[in-house]
Amino acid sequence: MTPIKRIFIANRGEIAVRIIRTCRALGIETVLGVSQADRDSLGAQLADRAVVLGPAPSTQSYLKVGTVVQAALGTGCDAIHPGYGFLSENKALAEACANEGLIFIGPSPDNLDAVGDKLTARTHAENAKVPLVPGGSVDTVEEAQALATAVGFPMLIKAVAGGGGRGMKRVDRAEDLPAQLDLAISEAAAAFGDGRVYLERYVTVGRHVEVQILSDGEAILHAGERDCSVQRRYQKVVEEAPAPHLPEAMRKGLHDAAIAYARHINYRSLGTVEFLVDVERGEFYFLEMNARVQVEHPVTEAITGLDLIALQIAIAEGRPLGMTQDDIVLTGHAIECRLNAEDPDNGFMPSPGRVSQAWFPSMPGLRVDTHMTPGAMIPPYYDSMVAKLITHGTTRDEAIATMQTALKVCALTGVKTNAGLHAAIMGDETFQQGGVDTAYLPGLLARIQQGGKA
Amino acid sequence: MTPIKRIFIANRGEIAVRIIRTCRALGIETVLGVSQADRDSLGAQLADRAVVLGPAPSTQSYLKVGTVVQAALGTGCDAIHPGYGFLSENKALAEACANEGLIFIGPSPDNLDAVGDKLTARTHAENAKVPLVPGGSVDTVEEAQALATAVGFPMLIKAVAGGGGRGMKRVDRAEDLPAQLDLAISEAAAAFGDGRVYLERYVTVGRHVEVQILSDGEAILHAGERDCSVQRRYQKVVEEAPAPHLPEAMRKGLHDAAIAYARHINYRSLGTVEFLVDVERGEFYFLEMNARVQVEHPVTEAITGLDLIALQIAIAEGRPLGMTQDDIVLTGHAIECRLNAEDPDNGFMPSPGRVSQAWFPSMPGLRVDTHMTPGAMIPPYYDSMVAKLITHGTTRDEAIATMQTALKVCALTGVKTNAGLHAAIMGDETFQQGGVDTAYLPGLLARIQQGGKA
Repeated sequence: MTPIKRIFIANRGEIAVRIIRTCRALGIETVLGVSQADRDSLGAQLADRAVVLGPAPSTQSYLKVGTVVQAALGTGCDAIHPGYGFLSENKALAEACANEGLIFIGPSPDNLDAVGDKLTARTHAENAKVPLVPGGSVDTVEEAQALATAVGFPMLIKAVAGGGGRGMKRVDRAEDLPAQLDLAISEAAAAFGDGRVYLERYVTVGRHVEVQILSDGEAILHAGERDCSVQRRYQKVVEEAPAPHLPEAMRKGLHDAAIAYARHINYRSLGTVEFLVDVERGEFYFLEMNARVQVEHPVTEAITGLDLIALQIAIAEGRPLGMTQDDIVLTGHAIECRLNAEDPDNGFMPSPGRVSQAWFPSMPGLRVDTHMTPGAMIPPYYDSMVAKLITHGTTRDEAIATMQTALKVCALTGVKTNAGLHAAIMGDETFQQGGVDTAYLPGLLARIQQGGKA
Repeated sequence: MTPIKRIFIANRGEIAVRIIRTCRALGIETVLGVSQADRDSLGAQLADRAVVLGPAPSTQSYLKVGTVVQAALGTGCDAIHPGYGFLSENKALAEACANEGLIFIGPSPDNLDAVGDKLTARTHAENAKVPLVPGGSVDTVEEAQALATAVGFPMLIKAVAGGGGRGMKRVDRAEDLPAQLDLAISEAAAAFGDGRVYLERYVTVGRHVEVQILSDGEAILHAGERDCSVQRRYQKVVEEAPAPHLPEAMRKGLHDAAIAYARHINYRSLGTVEFLVDVERGEFYFLEMNARVQVEHPVTEAITGLDLIALQIAIAEGRPLGMTQDDIVLTGHAIECRLNAEDPDNGFMPSPGRVSQAWFPSMPGLRVDTHMTPGAMIPPYYDSMVAKLITHGTTRDEAIATMQTALKVCALTGVKTNAGLHAAIMGDETFQQGGVDTAYLPGLLARIQQGGKA
């Protein structure tokens, strides 16, 4: 057991503030590595110290492994917390930490290897007897056509090295396959430096459900699931826990499969196993494992009462979880809305700039994770998410009602946001019924654009 | 039923922000009347409009009935919310509202009369068969001595027109009575323009417990009790709900007595009936009724899930409560710490000035009601309270633990605060056991001053 005294946070925005919050509670000092654009950010103000990593573009600051490690060493830190995105699942950072005697607050380089490559991850799932979307890797058009015949259209072509929906192509008919495959391979090569692709059954009515895993290397527990089906262009917009209207057998199946997968790869840290729920067939398929804290972790914190960042740090220190599955009790329902600085009248394009008012109400059942302050600057270089509104209620209806109030009350002015979209979702009957699939939000947006009732 | 469209808020600080929050949720516009010192306050930024009432001293702004009423009329408001303190229990304001066709969000002038004068309030309690501290009004030394003989020392001399502990005198021996009585009468005459005093038994081990009342004029319900025994110089410092370790029969007795009192005076609005619990005798005595929203109302909101400001507005609009006593379910335990800009090294004197950092964490179970923002000015003219930290947990221990974390994490710099005192209270075994009396905090402070373990 190695107690951590000072953590270098290699991230920005709300997650930097979130990590600082738990560190302060634990009595751990923080050093925040910032880009030049983030020197005056709330995180930089709240950390015990902030050091500039480099110019604003991520490639020159937040993504520079060597610079991050040197900055951590130079400021006397004994650990690095990578947050999400950026270097959070970067094996080179985990390895550099190990070499330099720093604790990487995340899984081992081996774990990162096991989940980082989609094909390797699929192989592990197969071996762990965790169900996969029918499909496989293909090198030639002939292989692709044989696979498609066996699995059936529509199909999806994915880049092995891709993520977040980038490089995905849907193919509805056999005659479109050769051209789309060529395109996917060349796009993947250009975008990721890795032209390998694989094919999967395209699930027409699918829900994105993921299971939160906690593992100290011995005990592997789940902290329930999250439903992240409300997506736009493969980006999560609204998340909730638990997943509504899931048959209890499937819910248990998802939890068991996630634990089986994590155990198979000897996973140790916080992690999330993502599944696609095929609503029509009543089946679920493994998608991938995320070896980091997720943006949407607060909905799990709300229904479990756990501090996931504190647990992540404790595991990194080598402490046992000190609990059993029965100790994790799920209470009520939680919803998260990702508030983005986006222009709803312009295809939800990022809308950076200077915030004037930034006020979020404090009320029972509401938590707001944000780095916004009056006069804060939203730089154009990064993710457009500026706040996460998380509500927790005894029932799902209560969580929705609190979210509707919070959206009405909060004051974030000076930049355009997607608050109106969230209000439309929360007020929409279909969402209120619960259990929507990933086609829901594009459909709602089309209805709104057509001037129909949102 | 008269729906309110625009509310004039005749108050400042955190309660102005709190009222605006509910108004925004209800779709009611707000106009905030501010002093010149509060022009840039958070409330002034968040209200739909802010108008200056006058110079900084309350007597020239927040306490000017005519100015407030004219400002409300001039800005097209149809109602006035007086918050707490200032004009909140001022009969002249309630009457002026009635005369000008404005809704006063509070009880009727008759109700204010019934509770405003301590002697009248006592008479009502007697008639409602609500137990009173043995005692009574006295005009002469002879009357006082007769009463003291009947009731027994120690006794307390209180000003009829006083409040908040001002003008109170404790008398331990018969020989001290004449001089103290003279002093009390002359001080009361000077401070309140009313020299009437009364005598009461001084309860050696007493707890301050109050019951939240909701009345629409027909249904009179209680929303549980609050324990406000952690006081310094008659000022509440920490409040909680429910009151710990109260025998269930006494708890029910308190609720019933509060409802009986409110019913006896035909009370209609939100209100609080305050009691002194005589721990040694196992009895409780009526103290007074507060005809306004209390500073500590959020602990009740936490355990009931109610929005008390919304209910207050609904009652003022003439709506029925639309619920029964069984609909008010108390869940878990809530604690409030009043964070004041005070100098703990200088007798907790107010410590006004400019705040530099003002950041409060958002985490499950924590609510922070504050008007602090980075760079905010705390003027020297008003109450020193700058934030209320409210935690809610399944158990009291959980609420305390969350408060300890919140106190560690929050960042309010630039002025001195009593945050350290709150941390000492939350970490103190006696407080943690629960059920402390009003002598507890002075005792703790004495121990801290002597360098003992807090």
